Formats: sequence, structure tokens, C-alpha cells
Amino acid sequence: MIYLDNSATTRPYEEVIDAYVKVATHYFGNPSSVHALGSEAERLLYQSREVISKLLSIHPSEIIFTSGGTEGNNIAIKGTALKYKNRGKHIITTAVEHASIQEGLKQLEKHGFEVTFLPVNKAGAVAVQQVKDAIRPDTILVTMIHVNNEVGTIQPIQEIGELLKQYPKILFHVDDVQGMGKVPLSIVDSGIDLLTISGHKFHSVKGTGMLYVRQGVKLEPLFTGGSQENQLRAGTENVPGIVAMTKALRMTLENQQEKMEHLTKLRNHLTGFLNRFPEFVINTPLEGASPHIVNFSIPGLKPEVVVHALEDYKIYVSTKSACSSKQTSASRILLEMGMPNSVAKYAIRVSLSTQSTLEEIQAFCSAIETIIKQNKVIKR
Amino acid sequence: MIYLDNSATTRPYEEVIDAYVKVATHYFGNPSSVHALGSEAERLLYQSREVISKLLSIHPSEIIFTSGGTEGNNIAIKGTALKYKNRGKHIITTAVEHASIQEGLKQLEKHGFEVTFLPVNKAGAVAVQQVKDAIRPDTILVTMIHVNNEVGTIQPIQEIGELLKQYPKILFHVDDVQGMGKVPLSIVDSGIDLLTISGHKFHSVKGTGMLYVRQGVKLEPLFTGGSQENQLRAGTENVPGIVAMTKALRMTLENQQEKMEHLTKLRNHLTGFLNRFPEFVINTPLEGASPHIVNFSIPGLKPEVVVHALEDYKIYVSTKSACSSKQTSASRILLEMGMPNSVAKYAIRVSLSTQSTLEEIQAFCSAIETIIKQNKVIKR
Repeated sequence: MIYLDNSATTRPYEEVIDAYVKVATHYFGNPSSVHALGSEAERLLYQSREVISKLLSIHPSEIIFTSGGTEGNNIAIKGTALKYKNRGKHIITTAVEHASIQEGLKQLEKHGFEVTFLPVNKAGAVAVQQVKDAIRPDTILVTMIHVNNEVGTIQPIQEIGELLKQYPKILFHVDDVQGMGKVPLSIVDSGIDLLTISGHKFHSVKGTGMLYVRQGVKLEPLFTGGSQENQLRAGTENVPGIVAMTKALRMTLENQQEKMEHLTKLRNHLTGFLNRFPEFVINTPLEGASPHIVNFSIPGLKPEVVVHALEDYKIYVSTKSACSSKQTSASRILLEMGMPNSVAKYAIRVSLSTQSTLEEIQAFCSAIETIIKQNKVIKR
Repeated sequence: MIYLDNSATTRPYEEVIDAYVKVATHYFGNPSSVHALGSEAERLLYQSREVISKLLSIHPSEIIFTSGGTEGNNIAIKGTALKYKNRGKHIITTAVEHASIQEGLKQLEKHGFEVTFLPVNKAGAVAVQQVKDAIRPDTILVTMIHVNNEVGTIQPIQEIGELLKQYPKILFHVDDVQGMGKVPLSIVDSGIDLLTISGHKFHSVKGTGMLYVRQGVKLEPLFTGGSQENQLRAGTENVPGIVAMTKALRMTLENQQEKMEHLTKLRNHLTGFLNRFPEFVINTPLEGASPHIVNFSIPGLKPEVVVHALEDYKIYVSTKSACSSKQTSASRILLEMGMPNSVAKYAIRVSLSTQSTLEEIQAFCSAIETIIKQNKVIKR
């Protein structure tokens, strides 16, 4: 099997599953219980926070464990909106956010909030000046994806963070679900107040995630109840999942430089190949994008046909993002980038893991070459 | 180890962890992906819904998978409040709800909702007439715990459901986190619109749960984004967790009658023992309570001391509920039941699993007898 749909989800590391099983079996106590079994589970939570805080250069108390990226994004934007609605109801974002942000903001619009969706350039990026121009006295939040999940475009997070340091009453949330472990980002230096990550995007198990909440930032919780997670996320902690995610994050962030070079090499091989054929249009900007995503179109050849043809080679890629992949319309991200419908509706996303190999990419190239030769496609 | 804190959390069944590992390892695809790996994961979700729907006599589309009981309860009450706020802002509940309901309702009060907290009798129960008397033209929701998590009291859910059938505009939510697998309840016959369960309370892994949402009932989602779970709970599905919980539920509901008789036998043994000593006050009503919880006080002997003394015997019990167990104040549930502070602050909760044995209960009785003899306690 050649799995090239790592932006949808990743295969959990074996060590991660082992850690999960160990905790679920032997440390099953409720961390809130006062007896020794509870204390053992609580200690695992404490240790997990310690490890993550060192990995991300943040404080342990700034870590809120969640069930995944969608939850983190929703707590960030709705928790901010509910908390600061009396200060203002204006939110700034981009036109190319993940559905969990975009739909959440649309829901807030129904409840009286006003959202500015900044348009992006052909590379899928916004400029700092656009953010600056959009700021109003009633702006309470800027929320932005770090690495786009369909095309890999990197937004200028650090520069926007610098700008926002001049506006201490505006919170800055970053959706780093696709960026974590792929594109380095200093949370503290970038003046980020809130940052979302999702475990299953970096070889943890599903149902795990984290929201960074800078010390001093207040949010209205979506889940109230017990006092877990600084009263920001009630509910019995998923201790085995948290330990598993911590392990996955540690493994992911080891030898980052080397892994990035490896991904870049694979990416360049793939884009070099695609560039040789007139049938392909590369949608990912080759500058300013994460090395793990290559989005391209084969105009005239339905992406579902390509996905299923590749299955015969046991190669797995996707059309668009997983959560919108069952809609057959054109990618809204590509349309926002100014692509014509004739390109945007034929997109294929190849997303790599640091475990992907050059042989796998070569096998993919060979398979897709056969597929375009077997199918009638538009040569441009 | 004698684990008697099953209302806080349970030890996952071995078969449940095995199922989890199998899915996490071999079926790691994102159910939303269009390729075969995604379809396999989607099929597992489909099968899980089928199994649960048969077990609970509900429709597969009425199942919303969640990350646990707190999430289910929060979606139920806040999703209803947000959806129907223009119809009315009055909610009815009891004074003895789990924190995830009580705190959620207090949060809603801050946002302009009005909540009636019905007082309970000495057994911790409300009467149907109290609910009827509390109904107003602007009532949109009745939310009630089925089995109390501290004392085990069973509320008259079916009778209240019957009453509410006359009020089709009032939704009826039941928090069945403690009841599922312990006290039978027909969801459909009881006219229930929403019902919460939590996997780790019945030997599933943590981070799993389900909200039943009756066909036709509309809610405002807390997590927006992808269209998962009937658009009521966005986010990549925790497929291994869902499969694991499904297995745990199936195993839990097997031979129910036999298991209930076993639990009742153990409970009777324990209460029979406690009744022989003047040092103990049994707080759980012996009629009208679930057989898996025995709450009692040892007035004058701090419950933390008892919990830690029992640890020397490798016996694990709790004070109050896990999520409030680190507060040293008296149990609010017992105070609501009219117990004096001198009893309510000395409560110990023993909570059984169907895997508990008579030998374990005998060992517990022997240990606690030694403990009261070693400590100076008030004889009544």
C-alpha cells in the first residue's frame, strides 16, 4: 500500500498505539479520583503536559487537551466570541479556512457577529496589510490557517502576529492542524494567543488534539461541567489518547530539519515529474507552501476516476480535503485562488508523510502516467 | 486490586482494547476519504451504528458519536437552547444533576435563559407532578439524570416522558451516563428526544460516547465544520473508539437480567453489612436506586482518610463524584436530599461493576470494619 493521503489522516505510529494500550490497560483510573489509581492517571497527564510544553516552548498550563482539530478550532472561535461579545462582534479571517473555522464563523454570523473573509492571491496567501486594513475598533479575533489543507500554502503567521502585538485586545488564533510537524512556527514569538493541533494528522490516534491557550487569555468554554483543563474543557480526560498524542508529537518533532529536507526532495521529484506533462496543472504554489502537499489538476479527467484508478495500484490519494471530498463540486479553495472552474473541479491532492519514500513517489508517478495515457484528457 | 470506583470510570474490557488496536492499526483511513481505505473506515462506522441501533431499539441515524458524557450533555442542552431560544428560554431540571448539566445550565442562565432546578425528596427523586407544575409556555427543555452518579437514585423517567408527550414542543433530554447497562430504560417508549451515554462508564475506552437524537429533533451544533454525524458533530470520526464503544455496549447489555441480579446480591451484602454497625449511615435509598452504587457516610471520619486507608488494602472507592472529588466540601447531592452537613461531608461512594465479585465485597467489608475500629468515629 502506498498511502499518500496524509493530510486527511495518518497511520498511527506503532509506538503510539503501544503507549495507548499500556495506559488504557494499566492506568485506567479517572485522573479526578483521589485514590492512587486516579493519581497515577493524573501523573500521566502532568507528564504529557510537561513533554509537550518543552517541545513547543510553551507553559504546561497553556495546554488544553481536546478531541481533535475541529473541537480546538470551535472552542477557539466560539469561546472567544462568547467571551468578548460585549467588547465587539467583528472577526477577521481568510477565504481559505478549513470547514471547521469557516462553518463556525458562518454560525456566529447567524448569531449577530460580523466576519471579514479576506481574499487570497493566486498562491492562496493573504498579505499582512490586508489584515491591518480590516481591523476595526470592534474586532475581537483574527483566526487564520497556518498551512492550507488542500494546497499547502503557508500564511505569513509570524508577520501577522507582529502586527497584532499592537492590538492587545484582538486575539490571534492559528489553525495549525496541517502545519504542526511540517512547517516550523514559534508560538510565543509569533504573538499567538490560541493555536489548534490535531493528533491524527501527525501519527497519533484519532480523537486526540490540543488547543494552546496563552496564559491570561480567557474563553467561554463550550463544554462545562468538571474543572478539567483549566475549566476550559470539562469531561474525563482521555488519558490513553493524551499519552499517545504526546508520544506522536515527540516522534514527529525529532530530526525536523532532516525530515523537511526529505519531504522537499520527494515533493520536488513529484512536481518535476508533473511539470513534464502538459496534462497536469500544478495548483500548489511551489514557493511558500508546505513540502508535504502537492495539489494538481488533470483538466477533463474526473478526480474520482483518478482516485479509483490509483486504487488498483493500491495507491491512496484524495480529491480536495477529506471533509468535503464527497461533494463533487469544484474546490472552493482553488476557486478562491482564482483558478477557473475547468481546473478547480479536477483537483487531486497528494499529501506526504515523513515516512513516505522516493520509491513510493516513483510508483505514484508511473501509475498516474499510465492513467493519463489510458484516459482521454485535455492536453494544454 | 479491588476496584470499586466504577461510577468514576471502568476498566476497559480486553476485547474492547483489542478491537481498538485492530481498527487503529489496520483501518486508519479517514471515513470521509473517497478511496478504499476511507470506505473501509466508513463501513466500520456504519456497522457500529447498526449494532447500537439494534441494542437500543433506535434508528442508526439517531446516533451521534461524541467524545464522552460531558460532550453529549453539553450538546443536548446548549444545542437545544441555541436552536429554540426564539421559542422560549425556560428549562426545567433537578437540583441533583451531574456537573456537566448543572454548570452548563448556569452558563445558559448567564446568557439569558431561565432554569428551574426542581428540589428532590429524601431519596433524591423528583415527582412527575413537580415537572408538570414547573412547565410554562416558554419551556423548551426538560433535562434530567436517569441514575444519580453519587447515590444511585433512579428518577421516574418513563413517567415524566409520558407527561411530556402532551407537550410536543418541549424536548426531553436524559443523562443516562450512570444508567446505561445498569438500569433498563426504553428510549422510544419513554418519549425521550435526547439521551447521553459515555463509553468509559461501561468498560469502553475513554474519549468515547454517544448522544441519541430522535429523528426530527433539530439542534444547533457546538462543533461545526464537516458534515459528519448528521451535521450535528463535525470532526474526523474516532473510528477505533467508536468500534471499541460498540463492542463494550454489546458486551455490557448481554445477560442483563443475570447481571442485575448479581449486582443486587452484592449490593444487599454490602448494605446488610453496613446496617450492622452504628458508625455507618447509608445515604443511598435502598428502594428506587441502581444496584451498582452504595453511598454511605462515616460521620466524624474524613472520607479522604478512609479512601487512603483502603488503598493499603489495594481497594479503591471514592468520595462524591470523581469530577468534584477534589473539593473537600460536603456533597451537594446529599445536601439537596436533606442530609445534615454532619453526614453529607463524610460520604464514601462504592460503585460496582458487573465484574465485581462477592469476595471483593467481603474483603471491602472486612477492611472498612478494621478502619473504623482503628479510627475514632462517632457512634450514633
